[in-house]
Amino acid sequence: MSAAGARMAEEVAEQPAVFDSIVARRGDMAAVAALVSARRPRFALLAARGSSDHAALYAKYLIEVLLQLPAGLVSPSTTSLYGARPDLTDVLYLSVSQSGGSPDLVAATEAARAQGALTVAVTNTPASPLNDVAELSVDIKAGEELAVAATKTYSATLLSLYLLVDAVRGGKGEAVAGIGELAARALAAPIDDAVERYRNIDRVVTTGRGYSSATAAEAALKLAETSYLGARAYSGADLLHGPVAAIDADTGVVAVTSRGHGGTAMRDVVAAVRERGADVLAVGSASADMPAKLRIEVPETAEEVAPILEVLPLQRLALALSLARGGDPDQPRGLSKVTRTL
Amino acid sequence: MSAAGARMAEEVAEQPAVFDSIVARRGDMAAVAALVSARRPRFALLAARGSSDHAALYAKYLIEVLLQLPAGLVSPSTTSLYGARPDLTDVLYLSVSQSGGSPDLVAATEAARAQGALTVAVTNTPASPLNDVAELSVDIKAGEELAVAATKTYSATLLSLYLLVDAVRGGKGEAVAGIGELAARALAAPIDDAVERYRNIDRVVTTGRGYSSATAAEAALKLAETSYLGARAYSGADLLHGPVAAIDADTGVVAVTSRGHGGTAMRDVVAAVRERGADVLAVGSASADMPAKLRIEVPETAEEVAPILEVLPLQRLALALSLARGGDPDQPRGLSKVTRTL
Repeated sequence: MSAAGARMAEEVAEQPAVFDSIVARRGDMAAVAALVSARRPRFALLAARGSSDHAALYAKYLIEVLLQLPAGLVSPSTTSLYGARPDLTDVLYLSVSQSGGSPDLVAATEAARAQGALTVAVTNTPASPLNDVAELSVDIKAGEELAVAATKTYSATLLSLYLLVDAVRGGKGEAVAGIGELAARALAAPIDDAVERYRNIDRVVTTGRGYSSATAAEAALKLAETSYLGARAYSGADLLHGPVAAIDADTGVVAVTSRGHGGTAMRDVVAAVRERGADVLAVGSASADMPAKLRIEVPETAEEVAPILEVLPLQRLALALSLARGGDPDQPRGLSKVTRTL
Repeated sequence: MSAAGARMAEEVAEQPAVFDSIVARRGDMAAVAALVSARRPRFALLAARGSSDHAALYAKYLIEVLLQLPAGLVSPSTTSLYGARPDLTDVLYLSVSQSGGSPDLVAATEAARAQGALTVAVTNTPASPLNDVAELSVDIKAGEELAVAATKTYSATLLSLYLLVDAVRGGKGEAVAGIGELAARALAAPIDDAVERYRNIDRVVTTGRGYSSATAAEAALKLAETSYLGARAYSGADLLHGPVAAIDADTGVVAVTSRGHGGTAMRDVVAAVRERGADVLAVGSASADMPAKLRIEVPETAEEVAPILEVLPLQRLALALSLARGGDPDQPRGLSKVTRTL
């Protein structure tokens, strides 16, 4: 029997190498990207659950900003529970799932294809049921993931989605050319002060804006499922709209702040949270600019690829907190890797 | 100075009368509905923040299932922070805001109209900046809301959105004909056992599926902002995908379960949560069918209008818990009624 958290630790550490191999095989994306471009979609819909839903949120920003297409996250249950069958002509429908095995996602994707959408399965399992029903497939090539908590498959999904969107607009992946080395640096950032501060805390709020909203959502899920913290994510804008009232000195606030428009817009949010007496842990390449008490530095990149790096120290934080609190993230209570919801 | 929570209590109690007056003036919606139908939108986008975002989530289900149009929730920041200007021809763009004053929503709506969308402002403030920039307006007619926590404006927004969608499909509002009287019954349901059980709890998870996902999201926000509980919402499907690991005997689980497809799909979720040792409070017209420990009954309706009633006892629960914990929901820490995020 291996040490507590050994699987998760191993897969977290693999990410620089996984990124290098995805970037090296960027050309594999060209055929799918060309087919997507040729269909000239007018709208994008994204279907996913769990961590993949946060990857889909990231892709939504990419599609809206870089491809200038309106995009929405799908509720698979409108198809699976209520039998909705909208006309999806001109729609690019991306189904994102590590396993490609969730029955409701498979059913929703099959229905979308029948309704005229161009369907693309983005999975880590090229022979999955989801790949079978989708017209096109993108393999995220993260290697098998054994730990229950998704780490390398999450970041590999982000990187693959970025490369796909970038290829559709005719890019050559310049913004992620050195992402493997930057990831190694992001993983080397000290997190001890943050672990010490949060090991006895029960409530965490994570927050970010723009592209980094996805990181905030994923960090909250990771903390909740590995460390059993009551963690929830808010966009920085929504946080000031109400939930800031629930923040006090006993709340750990993780602010994801990378250089760019999203990070700049977070400065007021961090200041408002500090006024409530809460510490703030700022994570990202703009953390030095924030009125935060604790910081985890992440190497700077183009803003649209920052989420690929921001999440790395947060995965380490979730792992370390789980261990510090006496848990084992490889043996979480009641978690299984594929959901069977209908 | 009035008693703690008096404003919120008063506005919660007004809802049956507000519903009656909205239904009585259903005809006011006809002109907007006719214009929407005439434009034959192919896609719907919804923009909102805070509680209104949950009303938008409800509308997303209505639009997908009843109008058979794909629909997505907008991230206003792709417009306001990143300057995205997608082609929105054939798009119905609904902007939902009690005050109609959030600058980023106003900017996003103005940009959407310039990009070709049919824009509709759904507000409680007909002379607001949002109404000024949108092509069409729906007045939710809830009367002035003085309490900081949104209650009657939330439910009035749901009812108005239902009537709008129903009118677009040529309906006559049959499913909500008697909603005022049913609301009075929903507000009379005993909640004392739930208050007693949750008054000393710090962590709450709310969950629902389908239409009721919106109720779960709104209940979590209401509990977080009035009672400072660490409350977060999961779709029943996502809950089983990971966060169920964080549920234990110290977690209060509120399952929103109304009769219909969503409620039926929740039975397994409630059973899985019970297995983890957590009590479940089932709220809705299907609560009697759930393996829950505590129940709050809500009168049965057509499933698509159940969220208008489900939220009522949950508003009362948030208010009562706030008072039981020594708070005053009318004076929450650091909450203001209009957000000024850009």
